[in-house]
Amino acid sequence: MDLGIIVGLIAGVVLTVIGILWGGGDMRAFINAPSVMITLGGSLASLFVGHPFSRVLNMVTYLRITMRPPNFQEERLISQLVTFSEKARREGLLALEDDLEELEDDFLRKGIQLVVDGTDPEIIKNILYNELNQIQARHQHGILLIDDFSKQAPAFGMIGTIIGLIIMLARIEDRSTIGSGMAVALLTTFYGAMLSYLVFGPLKKKLEDRDAAETLVKEIMLEGILSIQGGDNPRILEEKLLCMLPPGRREAVRQQAVKE
Amino acid sequence: MDLGIIVGLIAGVVLTVIGILWGGGDMRAFINAPSVMITLGGSLASLFVGHPFSRVLNMVTYLRITMRPPNFQEERLISQLVTFSEKARREGLLALEDDLEELEDDFLRKGIQLVVDGTDPEIIKNILYNELNQIQARHQHGILLIDDFSKQAPAFGMIGTIIGLIIMLARIEDRSTIGSGMAVALLTTFYGAMLSYLVFGPLKKKLEDRDAAETLVKEIMLEGILSIQGGDNPRILEEKLLCMLPPGRREAVRQQAVKE
Amino acid sequence: MDLGIIVGLIAGVVLTVIGILWGGGDMRAFINAPSVMITLGGSLASLFVGHPFSRVLNMVTYLRITMRPPNFQEERLISQLVTFSEKARREGLLALEDDLEELEDDFLRKGIQLVVDGTDPEIIKNILYNELNQIQARHQHGILLIDDFSKQAPAFGMIGTIIGLIIMLARIEDRSTIGSGMAVALLTTFYGAMLSYLVFGPLKKKLEDRDAAETLVKEIMLEGILSIQGGDNPRILEEKLLCMLPPGRREAVRQQAVKE
Amino acid sequence: MDLGIIVGLIAGVVLTVIGILWGGGDMRAFINAPSVMITLGGSLASLFVGHPFSRVLNMVTYLRITMRPPNFQEERLISQLVTFSEKARREGLLALEDDLEELEDDFLRKGIQLVVDGTDPEIIKNILYNELNQIQARHQHGILLIDDFSKQAPAFGMIGTIIGLIIMLARIEDRSTIGSGMAVALLTTFYGAMLSYLVFGPLKKKLEDRDAAETLVKEIMLEGILSIQGGDNPRILEEKLLCMLPPGRREAVRQQAVKE
Amino acid sequence: MDLGIIVGLIAGVVLTVIGILWGGGDMRAFINAPSVMITLGGSLASLFVGHPFSRVLNMVTYLRITMRPPNFQEERLISQLVTFSEKARREGLLALEDDLEELEDDFLRKGIQLVVDGTDPEIIKNILYNELNQIQARHQHGILLIDDFSKQAPAFGMIGTIIGLIIMLARIEDRSTIGSGMAVALLTTFYGAMLSYLVFGPLKKKLEDRDAAETLVKEIMLEGILSIQGGDNPRILEEKLLCMLPPGRREAVRQQAVKE
Repeated sequence: MDLGIIVGLIAGVVLTVIGILWGGGDMRAFINAPSVMITLGGSLASLFVGHPFSRVLNMVTYLRITMRPPNFQEERLISQLVTFSEKARREGLLALEDDLEELEDDFLRKGIQLVVDGTDPEIIKNILYNELNQIQARHQHGILLIDDFSKQAPAFGMIGTIIGLIIMLARIEDRSTIGSGMAVALLTTFYGAMLSYLVFGPLKKKLEDRDAAETLVKEIMLEGILSIQGGDNPRILEEKLLCMLPPGRREAVRQQAVKE
Repeated sequence: MDLGIIVGLIAGVVLTVIGILWGGGDMRAFINAPSVMITLGGSLASLFVGHPFSRVLNMVTYLRITMRPPNFQEERLISQLVTFSEKARREGLLALEDDLEELEDDFLRKGIQLVVDGTDPEIIKNILYNELNQIQARHQHGILLIDDFSKQAPAFGMIGTIIGLIIMLARIEDRSTIGSGMAVALLTTFYGAMLSYLVFGPLKKKLEDRDAAETLVKEIMLEGILSIQGGDNPRILEEKLLCMLPPGRREAVRQQAVKE
Repeated sequence: MDLGIIVGLIAGVVLTVIGILWGGGDMRAFINAPSVMITLGGSLASLFVGHPFSRVLNMVTYLRITMRPPNFQEERLISQLVTFSEKARREGLLALEDDLEELEDDFLRKGIQLVVDGTDPEIIKNILYNELNQIQARHQHGILLIDDFSKQAPAFGMIGTIIGLIIMLARIEDRSTIGSGMAVALLTTFYGAMLSYLVFGPLKKKLEDRDAAETLVKEIMLEGILSIQGGDNPRILEEKLLCMLPPGRREAVRQQAVKE
Repeated sequence: MDLGIIVGLIAGVVLTVIGILWGGGDMRAFINAPSVMITLGGSLASLFVGHPFSRVLNMVTYLRITMRPPNFQEERLISQLVTFSEKARREGLLALEDDLEELEDDFLRKGIQLVVDGTDPEIIKNILYNELNQIQARHQHGILLIDDFSKQAPAFGMIGTIIGLIIMLARIEDRSTIGSGMAVALLTTFYGAMLSYLVFGPLKKKLEDRDAAETLVKEIMLEGILSIQGGDNPRILEEKLLCMLPPGRREAVRQQAVKE
Repeated sequence: MDLGIIVGLIAGVVLTVIGILWGGGDMRAFINAPSVMITLGGSLASLFVGHPFSRVLNMVTYLRITMRPPNFQEERLISQLVTFSEKARREGLLALEDDLEELEDDFLRKGIQLVVDGTDPEIIKNILYNELNQIQARHQHGILLIDDFSKQAPAFGMIGTIIGLIIMLARIEDRSTIGSGMAVALLTTFYGAMLSYLVFGPLKKKLEDRDAAETLVKEIMLEGILSIQGGDNPRILEEKLLCMLPPGRREAVRQQAVKE
């Protein structure tokens, strides 16, 4: 679970509720079913018009990704690639076949498989880069969808407020309902702003972070696979891959290498 | 028919109507001919000023494209290109002449025709890339038009609201009409926002999706045609083209290839 | 005359007038000299601060360009370049000297002149590309000016509305003038929005279209001139140049070529 | 003096004053010291937070640059460079030493000095390009500062209006002061908008124009210096440099060249 | 301490307070705990949703960086690199080992260490560029966080105002509280705008300045390290590095070089 999201969402809601009560408001004035329906329903409906059907239905998956903090264990991956590199130089590329089964990542297994099969380096590069493009395109679909939600929510909030104002103005002669009518009208703007600025806008940024983290891992794999096939020196490979990590995370790998 | 557009548009309108009625509004207060005229007519008029005449008249065509979900059968196309590649290697490039008639796509037929004619590869590349540029420029014209509509609609909605406010303010001494005057004034903003956020904004995104899908197909064709002329290995060609599809769609081609 | 601009501007104004009258408004309430002065005069004044003096005075020229639909007769130009190419291969580059006088376009004449003079290809390329850059820079000046007008007009419309509100609020004790005061205040926003969304915003797009059309013609000329000097095959030249046109316009040239 | 800035600023202020008086306003209602202080003082204070201290103090220098119309006499510069080129070919690069003293421009003098010193062409290029980068970075600092001013002014105008509204609302029971309170509150928005849309926004565009003009001159010098060192033909050099000017300005140089 | 930030922040707050008092306001009306909580708390909560937990907790570090004016002593660094270059040419690369300990900067020490170790130039380049990328990525994280704060603050200011309006409208029948209710509602917008336009927006620009300054220093080091390994002439190295400084700062180095 991504602690930041939990803490942020709970804090955001709690602070808002405290703010309402502290300011002398009544929570019941802030809950209104038709307003929820117009803001949330309207923006969801617009997502169906603008995005492929299956992608909108898939939104929960995208949101679940934001909740999983990336745990790609880049340090372990680099150690593994360096080990493969040493083995390949000692026993030949074919020796890597035994390790294929224990590889959990599809991208890495496919790449090592191609190396073991003796595929031409140009074609391996072509295939793996296309694979990476596909992964990034898939991420991009989710980012665009959540981003769109964060923009449509305040738009439909505004539409709801205009609807509320028109309803209120049509019976303005009844002075006693003006205040409550306008209060209800403003609720959709409130919902739209909360959905956009507390929830979907920030979640889109989290998704972009997740995309960057997974792309980095795939680039480490790609660099490693091509170096293994090219027969590069394992020490040079290790140094090259470590450079792709932030300084603080390099030590773990170096210490393990020393121990071995 | 694109199910998402139908579902989204109907849901958006139905939710809005329910929201109005549930909120105690009267649907008649939301229908007003002069307001429709200013919002829709004004933004259409501005499109004629900014875009070529024929392109604006062509708008229905662009909208029809959004309704047709892309069905380019990339899997079948790849199988076909691989078959052509095998035939060309077995019987020579001239043998492809027999297959020209059954090709429905202009781009593909033109490319194969040029290959059969023995045209210089550089010129084929030049011609097909220019062709692809022309296709993308044509798509871009539609995207820009629909995008402009989605931006002009709320602008003329705002203009209509200002007109309504000026009319109402000019006879403000008649207190009884202030409310209804302002309600009518806000209608154009409501229409403009619905046209932009529920209809044309999302439809522009659909058009961009359609453009991306057709561009992908043409790029597969281009890659295939050049590979066939270059006499590449059909297996390598197949792998290269499959890499351009999302993983889930590659299996169908592979299984068919195995069956054959 | 560009039919779209005429139709669009007239339709936009007529629809607005009908909307005002249909909505029960009085046209006289929408015409106010000080408001025109602040909106139009203020934004023009700001253009003088931001753009070179001569360029602002030149604005009518830029607007006249939007009214002239591009008629570069690309088909005729391509035929002509192909004819030159054939002549140059038959009779030598010097033979083109006789055709120089009948060329109306400065860019084309200069290019052919340089070819006839036996100038080094690198220098011809350098000179013609710089010439094209200068043409595009000139266009860009006009586009930036009209674009700026379309952004300053609503800004000064807003400034006018604030001025009107301050005037009205300063004598708010006279209740009878509040309505008319606010109505007048809103007029500048109305003028600014109409100038921006109906007139200068769309006209800027038309200018961009004109720029793209003229750039295309110059690129066809450039390609043609360099091919003629290089002694390329006239058929290949024709095919190359045709690829730069949209498909629908290629037939005319091809049929003429066949006839000849 | 840049006539456009003088004319534009005076016209903008005069038109606004006429608009106020014509609209029945009282100029005294538009002048208010605390409002000036919040809008101008607040945005200046924010500039000190965001930009280096010395750069903000330097603002008058940047504004003075906008007032000086560029007068780089490109025609004379090109003639001079061509003369140098001829002299260098006739009498050797060392002969240029005599002309060094009469050169007023630092960039040009430094370049010719390096040529006379027999510095390696790669190093001359490196030094002069870095020099040009430094000049552009310096310009960019001014453009960013003025641009920031044009954005902070309306922001602090809005802050001032909110302050004014809060003050007015706090004593709303005194009905007689509501109007004048809101009028004063709106003044800061008025000041902020005038500063942004009439003054600093357009002046930023002027600064960009000045930057483009000086960069062009430096690029002509750079091209000329490198050509002189390379011993290029003076006629070719002249043609190359003329291509960097707009067509209308080339004649002067050509006629002078003919006279000589 | 960065004088500009201190001066700007104090001036901004003082001017605002004077503006409030001068305009007849009461400072107590501008201080409200629930409003602070919603604006500041809400935007902080949203930062936790959108950014990694540790990065938000790290915000004070980022803010402290803006307070430290960059003092990288580029002049001293260049002298040092030139001295190293001379020593390396005289006594060999290994002689630099003695100077390693006195180097305080990690980046420079690592680079010289690699040179002393006789590492392949390609690998040194690869390692140092990756190191520089990591530094810039770390800076970028801070810039994005502060930028996000400057955008979320006014958003939650607006949310607070809507909440305040809804509370006020719900008890609108009590006429006496309308004014004070709206005044309190506007306070969050006021807080949000001050936080964004006086504090976090400008501080983000300062951070970008700091990033540019540190990147320049690292680029000077990188250039110097590679030149030392390549055995370049120390005079050429000095000229190359000086070109990366603004003209005014070059003299100090030159004079020192002459003295020596």
